[in-house]
Amino acid sequence: MAKQAPSLMDTIVSLCKRRGFIFQASEIYGGIGNTYDYGPLGVELKRRVKDAWWSRTVTVRRDVVGLDSAILQNPRVWEVSGHVGGFSDPMIDCKTCKGRFRADHLDQLACPEKPSKHPGECHGELTEPRSFNLMFKTNLGPMEDSGSVAYLRPETAQGIFLNFANVLSSARIKPPFGIAQIGKSFRNEITPGNFVFRMREFEQAEMEFFVPPDENDQWYAYWRDERYRWYTDLGIRADKLRVREHDQKELAHYSTATCDIEYEYPFGWGELEGIACRTDFDLKRHSEASGTTLEYFDPQTKEHYTPYVIEPAGGIDRMALTFLVDAYEEEQLEKDTRVVLHFHPEIAPITVGVFPLVKKDGMPEKAMEVEEDLRRAGFATFYDEKGAIGRRYRRQDEVGTPWCITIDGNTLENDVVTIRDRDTMQQDKVQVAELRAYIDAAVRSWKR
Amino acid sequence: MAKQAPSLMDTIVSLCKRRGFIFQASEIYGGIGNTYDYGPLGVELKRRVKDAWWSRTVTVRRDVVGLDSAILQNPRVWEVSGHVGGFSDPMIDCKTCKGRFRADHLDQLACPEKPSKHPGECHGELTEPRSFNLMFKTNLGPMEDSGSVAYLRPETAQGIFLNFANVLSSARIKPPFGIAQIGKSFRNEITPGNFVFRMREFEQAEMEFFVPPDENDQWYAYWRDERYRWYTDLGIRADKLRVREHDQKELAHYSTATCDIEYEYPFGWGELEGIACRTDFDLKRHSEASGTTLEYFDPQTKEHYTPYVIEPAGGIDRMALTFLVDAYEEEQLEKDTRVVLHFHPEIAPITVGVFPLVKKDGMPEKAMEVEEDLRRAGFATFYDEKGAIGRRYRRQDEVGTPWCITIDGNTLENDVVTIRDRDTMQQDKVQVAELRAYIDAAVRSWKR
Repeated sequence: MAKQAPSLMDTIVSLCKRRGFIFQASEIYGGIGNTYDYGPLGVELKRRVKDAWWSRTVTVRRDVVGLDSAILQNPRVWEVSGHVGGFSDPMIDCKTCKGRFRADHLDQLACPEKPSKHPGECHGELTEPRSFNLMFKTNLGPMEDSGSVAYLRPETAQGIFLNFANVLSSARIKPPFGIAQIGKSFRNEITPGNFVFRMREFEQAEMEFFVPPDENDQWYAYWRDERYRWYTDLGIRADKLRVREHDQKELAHYSTATCDIEYEYPFGWGELEGIACRTDFDLKRHSEASGTTLEYFDPQTKEHYTPYVIEPAGGIDRMALTFLVDAYEEEQLEKDTRVVLHFHPEIAPITVGVFPLVKKDGMPEKAMEVEEDLRRAGFATFYDEKGAIGRRYRRQDEVGTPWCITIDGNTLENDVVTIRDRDTMQQDKVQVAELRAYIDAAVRSWKR
Repeated sequence: MAKQAPSLMDTIVSLCKRRGFIFQASEIYGGIGNTYDYGPLGVELKRRVKDAWWSRTVTVRRDVVGLDSAILQNPRVWEVSGHVGGFSDPMIDCKTCKGRFRADHLDQLACPEKPSKHPGECHGELTEPRSFNLMFKTNLGPMEDSGSVAYLRPETAQGIFLNFANVLSSARIKPPFGIAQIGKSFRNEITPGNFVFRMREFEQAEMEFFVPPDENDQWYAYWRDERYRWYTDLGIRADKLRVREHDQKELAHYSTATCDIEYEYPFGWGELEGIACRTDFDLKRHSEASGTTLEYFDPQTKEHYTPYVIEPAGGIDRMALTFLVDAYEEEQLEKDTRVVLHFHPEIAPITVGVFPLVKKDGMPEKAMEVEEDLRRAGFATFYDEKGAIGRRYRRQDEVGTPWCITIDGNTLENDVVTIRDRDTMQQDKVQVAELRAYIDAAVRSWKR
């Protein structure tokens, strides 16, 4: 993440606020850290990203089931997983200004007492680096003592390992199989930033895929390729996406292989998703610590074994940001420039805009009728009768609506509407009765 | 909540664990308070409940938009909303045993030093009741000091009020209109209980509907009826459901009317959802405290006004529990008893079970082909080839699968399958090519 191109990120942040994708959280009270709320279009974008992930990872597969575990778990979980002991950043304190800074980011941070200076430049003495745990702490029940400490989960993955035996005994499934979940996680990052790329509160989409140990390598390759393909199938440009295999030094001690799927953001290449071979590390740790055996008994070979695990783990907020950034274009036309989001139709918050050409002569009534029919049929629609028709097209381009339908004077006579394509700006004439089939076919055949 | 019928609740809790609806959270470490994880069937049940709520409340309506605000907000929000000052239970401490108890529940709680006794019976002196705040506290950033305190939101509603101006300026919408959201909230309940009915971590579905003040009463009646109808439309029995209007003493000082939609659980009548008139209380408080005007300017009357608010607020976990409890039946048949969940097909985690009659002669291959086709077409399916066909039907009855398809020897010749109805147990013969249309029609015409 070396390059800085603030202007494009600023443009996107501004578009997100203006059009209702993403707002600063608690904005009327000055915000709170790097925290964001999803507005009317943002929540629909995020829903579609989550649905597309769930559909591809769980619904259409016979070998993956879902789970939704709690954010608050027994604190013992995080001791055994290693998060209490090891999930930390090195921090130093300035004894004079009392500022606290990440030891490995000293050059990027300003001293709070002298904002233009680096720590130490207020001539204060610095402490040795100490580790600062990234988990949020709270207390359960009426007592605020050490016996009531609980943590906000820093990842959803552990909730899956905890339920391995429950799922195995209830879901009639056997390795190779996966357990997938989407949910909020929390990390008390010292330096969150880059809009929704790194937040303290974020949403994860993780899957633990349990395999016989000798199938580890083939399933790692499978999930690395499958997860990459999911992004390109949803329209992400392949030249902005790369797989970076971790070298030996980067690997966790238990991992046989790990890679990141990276995207080239305006601020540089960043991790969008990780695919990790976690071997039998987690299940064995929890087996030993809990006394509950977490193994699979193969009735054919009559053998008990601890499955190996392949973990594709992505962030829903990063995915949403990636779809926004990748879709964004300022397109030079003959006479002007238009801003357009080239969302895949399955990701676009609105699928169809519906407009009366003018606000009279029965056109609004007919347009509302067409819009209502499409809405009831399950399409995400938006009705707009305000302003010149060209402006209305541009407003929908800017939020990525793939098709706009215009009802004009002729429609009232022959039931034919004009349907305009966001990407090509070409217009077609379609019978109202054919609209659903036309749009369904257009969604299926869409290509970036 | 007077009556106790533990046996039915115990039966449902046990079914939920055995079949993968709901597991105790951190079970292998002895659990943690009254916290639960949703298993493979539970997560699908919950997804369908959320989708049904979102579809009816947001997607099919032109006058409601969605939102997804953060759990962590500026702490000032909770001061202004009244939660820091007033969201509390009265607690007393026993000076001898150091136990802490809800002052209004003294008779239900055992002293921790003498578990069979009530507090005070360890002869300790009791303190006067003090208020104990129900919000979970944590710290943001590297410092654990008062300047870094943050709360886990106790309700999703405030996130909507905070974004009133953002939504108004971005979504091209005007009163009467609503902003809806689904998300986790947290309350440090002293006595959580009754399975997922009252948990410290729970999921809410809330909507704030902003109206011109003189339309308050009609919209209150509208949303009370609409929300009641949503439950009965999804199959909840009307004789188990009632609307209880709050009397004057129960009303918050700012409210003109409030009611609860209550369900008769095995443990008695309990609140499933509340519909409250909140008037202009929240918008005015946040306007005054933040200095940001939260009003609507009506371009026709040229007047600024603060809308009144109708708030339907339900809990997704309670809804899921209600669908489970209401669907449950132990049906006496001629020779035995079957356990069946009469879920509405839109709520059922699995829509279609697909079985080969026997595990040979090409039937499994054909059954898997039929299952795969239905799955790819978007149906939630489950393939099962284990055990006698009668047992397989009963296994699907117990998790509420509305239809089961059996492939037998004839299917391989004439492409006709047997489809069996969960509720009537009647069987039909259907061409494989007609299956989708048959099931679609059956979903639409389903009645409890």
